Amino acid sequence: MKFTVLTIFPEMFAHIQESILKRAKHSGLIEIELVNFRDFAESKHKNVDDVPYGGGAGMVLKPEPIFNAMASVDRTGNSRTILLSQQGQLYNQKKAHELTVYDHLIFLCGHYEGFDERIRTLADEEISIGDYVLTGGELAAMVIIDSVARLLPGVLGKANSWEHDSHSQGLLEYPHYTRPPDYMGMKVPEVLLSGHHAELEKWRRKESLRRTFMRRRDLFERLEFQPGDYELLEELWPECPGLISYRHKWQHLEPKSKKKKSRPMSD
Amino acid sequence: MKFTVLTIFPEMFAHIQESILKRAKHSGLIEIELVNFRDFAESKHKNVDDVPYGGGAGMVLKPEPIFNAMASVDRTGNSRTILLSQQGQLYNQKKAHELTVYDHLIFLCGHYEGFDERIRTLADEEISIGDYVLTGGELAAMVIIDSVARLLPGVLGKANSWEHDSHSQGLLEYPHYTRPPDYMGMKVPEVLLSGHHAELEKWRRKESLRRTFMRRRDLFERLEFQPGDYELLEELWPECPGLISYRHKWQHLEPKSKKKKSRPMSD
Repeated sequence: MKFTVLTIFPEMFAHIQESILKRAKHSGLIEIELVNFRDFAESKHKNVDDVPYGGGAGMVLKPEPIFNAMASVDRTGNSRTILLSQQGQLYNQKKAHELTVYDHLIFLCGHYEGFDERIRTLADEEISIGDYVLTGGELAAMVIIDSVARLLPGVLGKANSWEHDSHSQGLLEYPHYTRPPDYMGMKVPEVLLSGHHAELEKWRRKESLRRTFMRRRDLFERLEFQPGDYELLEELWPECPGLISYRHKWQHLEPKSKKKKSRPMSD
Repeated sequence: MKFTVLTIFPEMFAHIQESILKRAKHSGLIEIELVNFRDFAESKHKNVDDVPYGGGAGMVLKPEPIFNAMASVDRTGNSRTILLSQQGQLYNQKKAHELTVYDHLIFLCGHYEGFDERIRTLADEEISIGDYVLTGGELAAMVIIDSVARLLPGVLGKANSWEHDSHSQGLLEYPHYTRPPDYMGMKVPEVLLSGHHAELEKWRRKESLRRTFMRRRDLFERLEFQPGDYELLEELWPECPGLISYRHKWQHLEPKSKKKKSRPMSD
């Protein structure tokens, strides 16, 4: 996939290829192109901004440099132009998956003082990475590039796959532990050392359910429980204040075999 | 304010000081300290991760390098340690303002494959910048540093101030325009060229209300309208499908003088 970023701070992107993106870039899975739209300014002093009509604090990005820069971009395959803006649709993991279908993502980075409204007409869509204010669109573009790139086949390598990502399943991840088994008195849970695979899987699922309930009630409320969750949730609710009020959502999963067992065996 | 980042990719931060943070750093308003916790690994090969107990894909960050690195950090004044994690509290502009009260923010950057659960005990809190999965905590730390730094006195300069930020008022920003008045047939609205200050202010407020209603219904529903909004919303609702269903929220703002005027003048 090709990523093109229109920005006046291309040097901010110099090191985004560190971490796993480095390997993805070296193996040709992704390509990052940086376009400094200051190079496309028409004025003698290469100005990219000007005072706002109607007055007000700050400067506003002018339309010409960005329109000119956009015209210079060589589009590859199925392309999509994204304006980074606090006014855009909130970015999430579902959107990251949706963006993987394109061959070429083009990002327009504004800056905090604002941009001429006519620049909006260049974008297919506007995205915001969260309800907070950044000095420019650059960090937002990096966040989208990073989160989309890691979903592309081959980028994470064979051993790792986004299918295990917490948000891909609607559950927060269970706790991870590595050596040593005791670090300054903090011990790894026994079940992880036991080698009992079925118990381990149950423990991980139970801890994911607990954590999602405790930390992200909104995600928990949208979960669709699996049959095996019945037993785990019945163990969990006495430990988690408030969980009992959701009991109706898993009671239908009570295994029939259990019901049979609870009948009197002989009479 | 001092920012300390514990990361295995310190080079990713090389250029975060571009943009307005550059000036803030040069004038001593902020200081960014990078700590590579690989330097604190105890093994011969400076390993920072190891296989997870219980098996599973990927490697898990070990506790020792991060505990050792944390012990080396020189805390300045009122400090706060933040773990960047998809499991943390969702970051927003309110949280950015809350973080400005500290003298020193310390960030622990995990990476996508996970970290030993015991590392959590080092953090005062966990923050997620959004519901998407990143390869590491580095971009999240940059987002927090950028959004907090720009709220510090002096960082944005005198002319610009975060008080004008859309999210600080719960409204999206009105459209901005700069020269030329006509760009490829796209014209600047007349009211911005008129020089009529009161009309201009009304237009800006009206467009902010329109945009918030059209793009971010969740923010619109939480708005508290001002007396002057009555007239603007009465103009807006015939233009915005669905807005009429919120009319009860501004009807009590109908000005008394208007009611008087509508009485017959003589009889």
